[in-house]
Amino acid sequence: MSSRPPTVRPHFAQLPGYAPVVPLAERARRAGLRPEACLKLDANENPYGMHPRIRAALAAALDDPQFGSIYPDPDQRALRTALADYTGLDSSMIIAGAGADELLDLVFRALLKPGGAVINCPPSFGMYPFLADINELQRTDLPRDDLFLIDQPQLIEAAGVAPTGSVIVLTSPNNPSADLVSTALLSDLLHHDIVVMLDEAYIEFAGLEASAAKMLPQHPNLIIMRTFSKWAGIAGLRLGYALAHPQLVSDLMKLKQPYNINHAAEVAGLAAIDAADEIAQQIDAIRETRDQLLQALQDINGLTPLPSQANFILTQVHESLGNGRALHDRLTSVGVFTRTYSDPTLAQYLRISMPRADQLELLIDRIREVV
Amino acid sequence: MSSRPPTVRPHFAQLPGYAPVVPLAERARRAGLRPEACLKLDANENPYGMHPRIRAALAAALDDPQFGSIYPDPDQRALRTALADYTGLDSSMIIAGAGADELLDLVFRALLKPGGAVINCPPSFGMYPFLADINELQRTDLPRDDLFLIDQPQLIEAAGVAPTGSVIVLTSPNNPSADLVSTALLSDLLHHDIVVMLDEAYIEFAGLEASAAKMLPQHPNLIIMRTFSKWAGIAGLRLGYALAHPQLVSDLMKLKQPYNINHAAEVAGLAAIDAADEIAQQIDAIRETRDQLLQALQDINGLTPLPSQANFILTQVHESLGNGRALHDRLTSVGVFTRTYSDPTLAQYLRISMPRADQLELLIDRIREVV
Repeated sequence: MSSRPPTVRPHFAQLPGYAPVVPLAERARRAGLRPEACLKLDANENPYGMHPRIRAALAAALDDPQFGSIYPDPDQRALRTALADYTGLDSSMIIAGAGADELLDLVFRALLKPGGAVINCPPSFGMYPFLADINELQRTDLPRDDLFLIDQPQLIEAAGVAPTGSVIVLTSPNNPSADLVSTALLSDLLHHDIVVMLDEAYIEFAGLEASAAKMLPQHPNLIIMRTFSKWAGIAGLRLGYALAHPQLVSDLMKLKQPYNINHAAEVAGLAAIDAADEIAQQIDAIRETRDQLLQALQDINGLTPLPSQANFILTQVHESLGNGRALHDRLTSVGVFTRTYSDPTLAQYLRISMPRADQLELLIDRIREVV
Repeated sequence: MSSRPPTVRPHFAQLPGYAPVVPLAERARRAGLRPEACLKLDANENPYGMHPRIRAALAAALDDPQFGSIYPDPDQRALRTALADYTGLDSSMIIAGAGADELLDLVFRALLKPGGAVINCPPSFGMYPFLADINELQRTDLPRDDLFLIDQPQLIEAAGVAPTGSVIVLTSPNNPSADLVSTALLSDLLHHDIVVMLDEAYIEFAGLEASAAKMLPQHPNLIIMRTFSKWAGIAGLRLGYALAHPQLVSDLMKLKQPYNINHAAEVAGLAAIDAADEIAQQIDAIRETRDQLLQALQDINGLTPLPSQANFILTQVHESLGNGRALHDRLTSVGVFTRTYSDPTLAQYLRISMPRADQLELLIDRIREVV
């Protein structure tokens, strides 16, 4: 008789796992505070929440007797049609996922066999190494410089010698350093026989004109990841999408989980696209808050914030204030929840997501209180 | 310059892909009918739709300013606590997924390396071969007999000679043959050094007393899959769960997508558990409809329905009526959407999901109309 539980594959047993965000209610409970009294600035969500028009669309969907109870459309017809309108690309170049996370995993899984090569430029989004490890890939880390900018000559050289079909993961704007990837760098990389998976999760905060989507028709080896989690404020409903060559999209559509987009995400995504002009006002407000917060942080002794093209700011924490973790903990005690990292290169840094405009003064006061 | 799109791995390029259900609106459009005039009996959904109490819980959640906009709880605390109450098992033995589909894939992925052995007893749920192929597994099919019953001696023999850690996939009740897996067979299998992944997606229609969950404490190599899609009527929101040994659950929690349960699924799942006694009335009604439909089909010349422990009936279609596909097409033309299969052993069969009690007479009339 088998008395042992099944054991996971050896490479899984050794993985550290992804470090996800602790939910607000749990963080507030641990801090001994009411959730309503806290500023949740740790996960780059839209501080304005779901737009009223998305909320209204979901409320209307609840009146449909079939909402939620029948299986979603495996071909994502309505969503892909709306996304074609939103992106200006043909729907054959678009695939939706349960968050961009699902699609990042799907692309790794579809293109690379175990041992396949992934090039990553840390510090960046922790999901890339997590998914590379899950897929048993060979990861090459090309660290960013002291200002967290990509070491471009080193990356271009790596692209030139990487095995055919290797995947380079880039993030524009990057998380957490909030800088854009230049078109010139992308052009250089895309001329090699490698794949660039460009994560544009935060591109709406830089402005869609900063997107590399216009390069897709000329570059079949470019894959762009997008999400509704940030700009459209529906992180909790799970909706992202990828833009890529029609042949690759067609292949990925066959490999994905058939019913990967839940009804609530579909309804919310369609409503977000429909209300994009109004949500743009939230995005504008977030950008304005970002510029004001940047200014305020620059004026605080011991903090050196990096410029930002995203909806968060990474700030250096000088040793006079301890380190990122210490400041994070002091902010937690006054109900401001931010993000720190276990990565040693980020030990002296703290990432702060943008609050609502009406919360900015409170945030600045609380930061001043603990520095 | 790379002018080719990225190519997927060779074993993916050859896959047929999963054959998902075509959405109602699309099926109705193709049939030239209004969706409201059609009976959607092709995907084993709950014909009563979401229970009013689930709908009310979602409506209430929409009033929460943070609903949908912040990331879900990666640890699934509230859901796992409620599921512990619902199943009578400790929450350390429970993991929730975006449908059981996600967890079926996760278990294959976590336990088996490429080339690892999966034993399947077709005809059964098409997702198993699809996911086995995606994970590049070595699949052994042990076909069921003429009545679609498992060939027990053959399966027990296969379990005895299978490599350590091989996964046997069983479905109880089976889809599409609607029969239960016996406790005696499970006991025999679980004494071998293999893993049994038992899919209980339809167990509520057999009665929870038919579940193998009570065998879990004695058998660490048993994994049970469940879903909210069928009994709780929320197939569109994507929620399933697995019951397994705490060590395996702990490992799977680390490997899953961190934010895999969307907010709507979480709210609906909690409400479904809370309203389980009331939803049990829907389940009772579905079982009653099933028994009545079985009787009616037995009285129709050319049809021989199989007994059912699920919310669907598989019926043989005698050659006097053509085959399963021919009858399916005739039913489609009168707005009754059923399920057929490309599997040759099911060519003379048709699967019909249960309608609402008030739709039963209409269904029987329409079947009589086309036979």
